[in-house]
Amino acid sequence: MVKSREELTNKIMIAKVEKGLTWKQVADALGQSKEWTTAACLGQMQMSKEQAEIVGKLFDLSEEGIAWLQTAPYKGSAGVPHDPLLYRLNEVLSVYGGAIKELIHEEFGDGIMSAIDFTLNVEREENPAGDRVKMIWSGKFLPYKPF
Amino acid sequence: MVKSREELTNKIMIAKVEKGLTWKQVADALGQSKEWTTAACLGQMQMSKEQAEIVGKLFDLSEEGIAWLQTAPYKGSAGVPHDPLLYRLNEVLSVYGGAIKELIHEEFGDGIMSAIDFTLNVEREENPAGDRVKMIWSGKFLPYKPF
Amino acid sequence: MVKSREELTNKIMIAKVEKGLTWKQVADALGQSKEWTTAACLGQMQMSKEQAEIVGKLFDLSEEGIAWLQTAPYKGSAGVPHDPLLYRLNEVLSVYGGAIKELIHEEFGDGIMSAIDFTLNVEREENPAGDRVKMIWSGKFLPYKPF
Amino acid sequence: MVKSREELTNKIMIAKVEKGLTWKQVADALGQSKEWTTAACLGQMQMSKEQAEIVGKLFDLSEEGIAWLQTAPYKGSAGVPHDPLLYRLNEVLSVYGGAIKELIHEEFGDGIMSAIDFTLNVEREENPAGDRVKMIWSGKFLPYKPF
Amino acid sequence: MVKSREELTNKIMIAKVEKGLTWKQVADALGQSKEWTTAACLGQMQMSKEQAEIVGKLFDLSEEGIAWLQTAPYKGSAGVPHDPLLYRLNEVLSVYGGAIKELIHEEFGDGIMSAIDFTLNVEREENPAGDRVKMIWSGKFLPYKPF
Amino acid sequence: MVKSREELTNKIMIAKVEKGLTWKQVADALGQSKEWTTAACLGQMQMSKEQAEIVGKLFDLSEEGIAWLQTAPYKGSAGVPHDPLLYRLNEVLSVYGGAIKELIHEEFGDGIMSAIDFTLNVEREENPAGDRVKMIWSGKFLPYKPF
Amino acid sequence: MVKSREELTNKIMIAKVEKGLTWKQVADALGQSKEWTTAACLGQMQMSKEQAEIVGKLFDLSEEGIAWLQTAPYKGSAGVPHDPLLYRLNEVLSVYGGAIKELIHEEFGDGIMSAIDFTLNVEREENPAGDRVKMIWSGKFLPYKPF
Amino acid sequence: MVKSREELTNKIMIAKVEKGLTWKQVADALGQSKEWTTAACLGQMQMSKEQAEIVGKLFDLSEEGIAWLQTAPYKGSAGVPHDPLLYRLNEVLSVYGGAIKELIHEEFGDGIMSAIDFTLNVEREENPAGDRVKMIWSGKFLPYKPF
Amino acid sequence: MVKSREELTNKIMIAKVEKGLTWKQVADALGQSKEWTTAACLGQMQMSKEQAEIVGKLFDLSEEGIAWLQTAPYKGSAGVPHDPLLYRLNEVLSVYGGAIKELIHEEFGDGIMSAIDFTLNVEREENPAGDRVKMIWSGKFLPYKPF
Amino acid sequence: MVKSREELTNKIMIAKVEKGLTWKQVADALGQSKEWTTAACLGQMQMSKEQAEIVGKLFDLSEEGIAWLQTAPYKGSAGVPHDPLLYRLNEVLSVYGGAIKELIHEEFGDGIMSAIDFTLNVEREENPAGDRVKMIWSGKFLPYKPF
Repeated sequence: MVKSREELTNKIMIAKVEKGLTWKQVADALGQSKEWTTAACLGQMQMSKEQAEIVGKLFDLSEEGIAWLQTAPYKGSAGVPHDPLLYRLNEVLSVYGGAIKELIHEEFGDGIMSAIDFTLNVEREENPAGDRVKMIWSGKFLPYKPF
Repeated sequence: MVKSREELTNKIMIAKVEKGLTWKQVADALGQSKEWTTAACLGQMQMSKEQAEIVGKLFDLSEEGIAWLQTAPYKGSAGVPHDPLLYRLNEVLSVYGGAIKELIHEEFGDGIMSAIDFTLNVEREENPAGDRVKMIWSGKFLPYKPF
Repeated sequence: MVKSREELTNKIMIAKVEKGLTWKQVADALGQSKEWTTAACLGQMQMSKEQAEIVGKLFDLSEEGIAWLQTAPYKGSAGVPHDPLLYRLNEVLSVYGGAIKELIHEEFGDGIMSAIDFTLNVEREENPAGDRVKMIWSGKFLPYKPF
Repeated sequence: MVKSREELTNKIMIAKVEKGLTWKQVADALGQSKEWTTAACLGQMQMSKEQAEIVGKLFDLSEEGIAWLQTAPYKGSAGVPHDPLLYRLNEVLSVYGGAIKELIHEEFGDGIMSAIDFTLNVEREENPAGDRVKMIWSGKFLPYKPF
Repeated sequence: MVKSREELTNKIMIAKVEKGLTWKQVADALGQSKEWTTAACLGQMQMSKEQAEIVGKLFDLSEEGIAWLQTAPYKGSAGVPHDPLLYRLNEVLSVYGGAIKELIHEEFGDGIMSAIDFTLNVEREENPAGDRVKMIWSGKFLPYKPF
Repeated sequence: MVKSREELTNKIMIAKVEKGLTWKQVADALGQSKEWTTAACLGQMQMSKEQAEIVGKLFDLSEEGIAWLQTAPYKGSAGVPHDPLLYRLNEVLSVYGGAIKELIHEEFGDGIMSAIDFTLNVEREENPAGDRVKMIWSGKFLPYKPF
Repeated sequence: MVKSREELTNKIMIAKVEKGLTWKQVADALGQSKEWTTAACLGQMQMSKEQAEIVGKLFDLSEEGIAWLQTAPYKGSAGVPHDPLLYRLNEVLSVYGGAIKELIHEEFGDGIMSAIDFTLNVEREENPAGDRVKMIWSGKFLPYKPF
Repeated sequence: MVKSREELTNKIMIAKVEKGLTWKQVADALGQSKEWTTAACLGQMQMSKEQAEIVGKLFDLSEEGIAWLQTAPYKGSAGVPHDPLLYRLNEVLSVYGGAIKELIHEEFGDGIMSAIDFTLNVEREENPAGDRVKMIWSGKFLPYKPF
Repeated sequence: MVKSREELTNKIMIAKVEKGLTWKQVADALGQSKEWTTAACLGQMQMSKEQAEIVGKLFDLSEEGIAWLQTAPYKGSAGVPHDPLLYRLNEVLSVYGGAIKELIHEEFGDGIMSAIDFTLNVEREENPAGDRVKMIWSGKFLPYKPF
Repeated sequence: MVKSREELTNKIMIAKVEKGLTWKQVADALGQSKEWTTAACLGQMQMSKEQAEIVGKLFDLSEEGIAWLQTAPYKGSAGVPHDPLLYRLNEVLSVYGGAIKELIHEEFGDGIMSAIDFTLNVEREENPAGDRVKMIWSGKFLPYKPF
């Protein structure tokens, strides 16, 4: 029995190592981006019935596991992580966050960049001085309006 | 007397409001990007003597203030902020952080995206369904190597 | 000199006590709701030039104070407050939050209630067993979509 | 054996997925609101013997599980959650909490909105610009009185 | 000028030391209990105009200070204090809290003891083995009711 | 096997539900107050051999469980709880703690109310406007003395 | 004007440096131990009128400062300090605390060592391998008793 | 199998209750103090092969358990505990810590009392007004030296 | 089945005790430093297929365990530890961190010492006054550059 | 007047910028290492009268400031800092701390590296692939001994 969404995530991680699958292969099977696909497999997004069945076949999940993939999960993780890769991402916000806020307000006025109506792209940027990680964040601007 | 870097930041913020300056105008005067320039004015980057004097003139800073701009500051801010704009940026990492880690390791192996050898771009992305905020992060990949 | 937005808020609170103004009177002068108006005066919303000048006259603010009202503020406050009135509001979410999440997903699917495209109404509900506070929250549903 | 109320909640969640029940169907069977019913099933409210037996049948619970439903539970959850839907609800209080406090005191004097003598309603508000989540909170005003 | 309620509390504490007043004398002047009176002077309760003027005279407060006494204050203090007297009170709840919860539910069913509709009495209990502090807490029972 | 005192507490709670016992019945069997008895069963007090055997019979505990009841437990729980009933008790100290400290010092001088040489009484106070919870705390005053 | 007990403590510390006084000299003037005297001067103990006047003369304090010494202070400091000397004292409890608890219960039964009916002695212990700090803690044992 | 040092500690605690051993008896078998012996059994000290075998026999530990006793453990526990006995020890440092620091520096200059080159003694101090717990701490003074 | 990287680390620790291996022997088998080897075995570094198989043989790990050694782990641990050895390392940074920052900036300008392009050496330094632990940290300097 | 050691540190930092002094020049004037000298100027070490007077002349400090340099300061700073340079140092301990602990115990047995009998060296290590920061830590090994 799969007792929780977290347990299902562990099963997926173990199956991925054992089957030698890449996230890109899973994404191609779904016809979605590798970013959305990975987040969904890690328990951050809700899948449709069709998506859940495709993922279920790839990772040999039980019927119960496939049902879990279709529920709306408790998303996100708490606080600032200490894993070096994850910490660097948070450090960018710690150092440049004030500047990002100033520049968005200068361009758009009072409001936010949506984290829901949002897409993400992670890719390799070739560079003779050492290849770089390039991330593109795109989120709809949502204004505060007086009421 | 300017007692601390934080006090200098407040003086710059007040002068910016009073003089009606934009961060882009300050960046053009320095010949640097608006992202680096804003971060530097907010006390996150160290300026050269020439840069500090240009900024000092724009904001009418004292000699002491111009000296502060040339010191290496204590950078960053603590924890996860509650300002809605800043929180959304942290939420992206809270929701997609695991996926970003998986995808960088899948592409590059064990290592990190540098937050020091790093550039940032914030811009408007026009869209008929509502304009979007587009951010491009580019950081050198630094591998862990056995020693 | 008004050194920070927080100092301006204190000035407004003191002037309100001294002049015997109510938030409803301020709201009427602005032609906005009492909820938005109070939040804006407490430093949670950005005012237009016209709005800032009206508020400036009502509270006898300086030019600098009026300028502050037009900036995009750092919004929100941290954590769970211990003031009894504010704590009760948080307790509602602590007790009913899981149920609210379940019911929104049951009705709308995966997504959130926007806190930006959002209106709020606070009013007295007369009741023979003791009058009640009635609050109406209305926020646009924003769906998560695969990409 | 059901070792704790938390374990019972997990059993209910799993049974709900497997049986394809909605919270509204459970509420109709009980003759209570969907808001109270969901909170009670999630371990936030104490049920009567009759209510517990109805819920027990719907979810195929053991005698022990039905007994647990009749105990007074440890209610609430700690702190500010990072799930995006739940966080937005807390953000409303973080941004508008001061205004709500001011407006309740302006209308009623010193006191609080009860979170015990309290009802909650969550519903869809149709809107051509995108449907909205509408929540109505109603809590008895309780005054502080000198003694 | 009195900038905040906290500053006013400090003024009252200093004046009390200088004038050699006891809390009982202040309470007698107001015709209220010493418990409510002390809490109100320490910024935890809102006074009426008449009460504020009596207190203002006793402590030689300014008009502004008397106005502050009539506002609804931000009440309470955060967390568990380390002052030995205050800590012991918290320790009683840490050790006996579970038992109190069990016994209230056994007697009354699901609900709480109100901390708003509440009175408090602190007195000396003479005892040959050493006098004791006796506190009587009385709060209205408020039941949770299904809706 | 009973691995820890916490596991024993869970066993007692389950047995109490199954046998339909009240804390008063347990207290009568022991010849102690319901307050001390409940706290002891919840793992906050050490029992004598005789007391442990009586409790062991009532709840059908093993020899090992009866031995655990005779050990000096790690007492107390951490921080401020979010269960509404328990929170209200903490809120009383958050709001009235300063007043209690002032009044004890005014009456007794510098020192504390003991939480060890301490008794507690929880009872129903009938009242036409709604019955009330009445708690009586009695702790020996312990003075600080110069040495 | 002396605004708070903390400010008075700072004044005493500065006067001690300027006058070249030792804590032993202050203790001799009071006829108390150096341990109690230092704690009292640092704002942890309440002095009698006679004690306060002696200390006031030694440190040239104002009348207001002498009054402050006679109030019952908010005692203690929060958490685990990072000063190396203070941390080592806390580390002793972190490493040996469980053993101390076991040994006190083995010798005395359930109860505590009082931190109020308590004396402390700090002295040099000569040793050819390097002198040692010797501290003697003596606190009355207070038993938990059933009631 | 004994999975961790913590699990071994639990086994020792259970065996001690079942066999009716005292810490003094264990200490006598080892020829060490009761303080060091108890700390070592609770997982705070590393034993030699001979010591581990003696302890293993007394508590009927497996070979694996005896091996664990010979490893260097992760020592200490986090933060300030809420158990009343342990809290009082921390409170002594919270109230008298500043005085201890002042007196050690006055006697020895800048440096610390070692918590490694350290011995501890816990004993009963007979007293007609009630027996007392007496603890003697002895730690080598380690000076800071310029380099 | 090995459910997590943490479980694998425990298996390695137990096997090391049972087989009497030293970290130096493991390092020699891998042909890497003892510092990198120990960190990798404790789950802080990713091994190649060849490295994982060598380690797998030494500790008798399953195929699944050998696969885990080849994944990129979640690295690091949270906060400041209370183990005395680990705490001392953190205390060095707490006391000398500001000086290290000043001296690196004085020598290199604004930037950091890399913790990724980094090597570490831990060794015994013989000394007649007592042997010393000598650690050498070497990390590439990474400058902040305007962009 | 110099009210605290922290204020003196700020004065030294400002004077250093204005006079264009380097920490090496201050160290040479004292005849101590640059590491100890910088730490002492930043308020982490106690100076002798002669050292304090030399530093006082270099930075034009008042008599009061020179006295402060001779007191034993409250040392250290709290927690894990978010400044990128300081964070990297803490990250080394977060990632390699377990390995350091294992290797010190393997070489020396149970005990610690002293942070008091300790020296530190920070220097440039030239390298064609980019210069490196080299730090040498040397601390006396202090063993735990049974007593």
